[in-house]
Amino acid sequence: MSKRLVIALGGNALGNTPQQQLDLVKNTASTIVDLVEEGYDVVIGHGNGPQVGMVNLAFEFAHNNNAGTPGMPFPECGAMTQGYIGYHLQQAIQAELERRGIDKPVATVVTQVEVSREDPAFQHPTKPIGSFYSKEEADRIVAETGYTFVEDAGRGYRRVVPSPIPVSIVELRMVEQLVSQHNIVITVGGGGIPVVREQYGYSGVAAVIDKDRASSRLALDLHADMLVILTAVDQVCVNFNKPDQKALSEMSLAEARQYIAEKQFAPGSMLPKVESCIEYVEKTENGQALITSLQKAREALQGKTGTIIHR
Amino acid sequence: MSKRLVIALGGNALGNTPQQQLDLVKNTASTIVDLVEEGYDVVIGHGNGPQVGMVNLAFEFAHNNNAGTPGMPFPECGAMTQGYIGYHLQQAIQAELERRGIDKPVATVVTQVEVSREDPAFQHPTKPIGSFYSKEEADRIVAETGYTFVEDAGRGYRRVVPSPIPVSIVELRMVEQLVSQHNIVITVGGGGIPVVREQYGYSGVAAVIDKDRASSRLALDLHADMLVILTAVDQVCVNFNKPDQKALSEMSLAEARQYIAEKQFAPGSMLPKVESCIEYVEKTENGQALITSLQKAREALQGKTGTIIHR
Repeated sequence: MSKRLVIALGGNALGNTPQQQLDLVKNTASTIVDLVEEGYDVVIGHGNGPQVGMVNLAFEFAHNNNAGTPGMPFPECGAMTQGYIGYHLQQAIQAELERRGIDKPVATVVTQVEVSREDPAFQHPTKPIGSFYSKEEADRIVAETGYTFVEDAGRGYRRVVPSPIPVSIVELRMVEQLVSQHNIVITVGGGGIPVVREQYGYSGVAAVIDKDRASSRLALDLHADMLVILTAVDQVCVNFNKPDQKALSEMSLAEARQYIAEKQFAPGSMLPKVESCIEYVEKTENGQALITSLQKAREALQGKTGTIIHR
Repeated sequence: MSKRLVIALGGNALGNTPQQQLDLVKNTASTIVDLVEEGYDVVIGHGNGPQVGMVNLAFEFAHNNNAGTPGMPFPECGAMTQGYIGYHLQQAIQAELERRGIDKPVATVVTQVEVSREDPAFQHPTKPIGSFYSKEEADRIVAETGYTFVEDAGRGYRRVVPSPIPVSIVELRMVEQLVSQHNIVITVGGGGIPVVREQYGYSGVAAVIDKDRASSRLALDLHADMLVILTAVDQVCVNFNKPDQKALSEMSLAEARQYIAEKQFAPGSMLPKVESCIEYVEKTENGQALITSLQKAREALQGKTGTIIHR
């Protein structure tokens, strides 16, 4: 039976323009198909920070300047990025599979991720999105919309949205069916379109779900054999950027928690990745998590580099 | 065995703003779930005319006015609308299924549709997209990009793109697997993201694929039992808007061709719908096509209204 990998790709690694993204997805595709060649079933989650910022900004600017286009709510902007990024990823992976003579379908499933209205993150929105405004403009928008704005390091006022914990993946069953049939599936793009429960079904909510946490949730729900978080470095380090910096080839849950207590990992950077790995590993029987770079993913899965988080 | 329906929904029936669309998809969801209750497996294709116009315009305006966002190629705009429309559709259908106590997954597959570089449509682009420009601006853009512009009824110059025939659906196998397992699948949004063959894989091309033709292709490739084209009228008429107007409950292929020869159907309106039905019916053994309105779809499938196109 093939082993199942859930891979979390960074949105920053996809570039800032459609041309950059088309180029960069080729590297991603090469790694993904490496892993397929190694015999894995691959499920891909990805970030969308720069991309959803771009979509949000284009619509906000056009609407504010009377271009004749409507304002675009944040969940809908996220849905757009799932189409936009998913299209490039699946196209690049299809080409790479064909180049290597592998016959395997790949596609993107538009995916909602449920969050809880009771999540404390809704009381403390922290993720900045969209343009900078003057205090007067920001006050006017707050009065009109109820949005939350914060002053951003002297550059002006900026809307912030919460970053709640993913509770469930709405389209999970369809993703599970596709993975069981050995398709390559792209899902939970940008951490998923954030939705909350209604009496029947769900509705969108302005929020950003961390893509590593969403991928961790996905790995748990799909009973994956491994969660693979791809980032800018080959291995997790302690004493990062200090003379005694040390790359870790593995850490147990206890060691990972100890390093976190020592504040070894930067918040908003390595910390949420390690936390997402812990979340996954502690709730599975035999699952392991791996943090490494896109370039080293194949070698890392062969045990030659990367950082494994295990029980 | 459940019968398989491919439904083509109009993009115009989805409204011009996200709020309108969220409202209007509820009607669509109600009809779709009616058909599920009738025992059909449902595959949904949809248009994106107003929506891809909106995305294209927002990005064009923001880019031209130095908002700091990149220009967005037309296929990528189409990919965004698949995420945007698919998200609303699947959310509304999920809620309606739950309201009626039906347990059935539904999701959108981001879908590319192959067209041929040799398609004569590429020599004669006809579909207007994006903003109006002065002759000077249009000439400058033509020189920079090679785009084709046409003068549009005294309102200025507007870019036109070709409308080629769909050749194949790139993600067909995944759609087929999902339909076989009785999922509701939303696919070929906006007629599909138009792509052309490369040595390996595909690349995007600026074009608009007619959504009825793409749905006809889909119905053929999925061996559907029926192609259902939903439009603004309950039945196809001959002598439309004349004193002797007559609604048709059915027409054979021969009759349909005869009506076309008599120019009974308006180009860009009923004509491509009837042609898409002919295309499907003539290439299947037992398949029939149905043209009706969203509101009357259930009744039409019970034989009470609508226009059936048969051998």
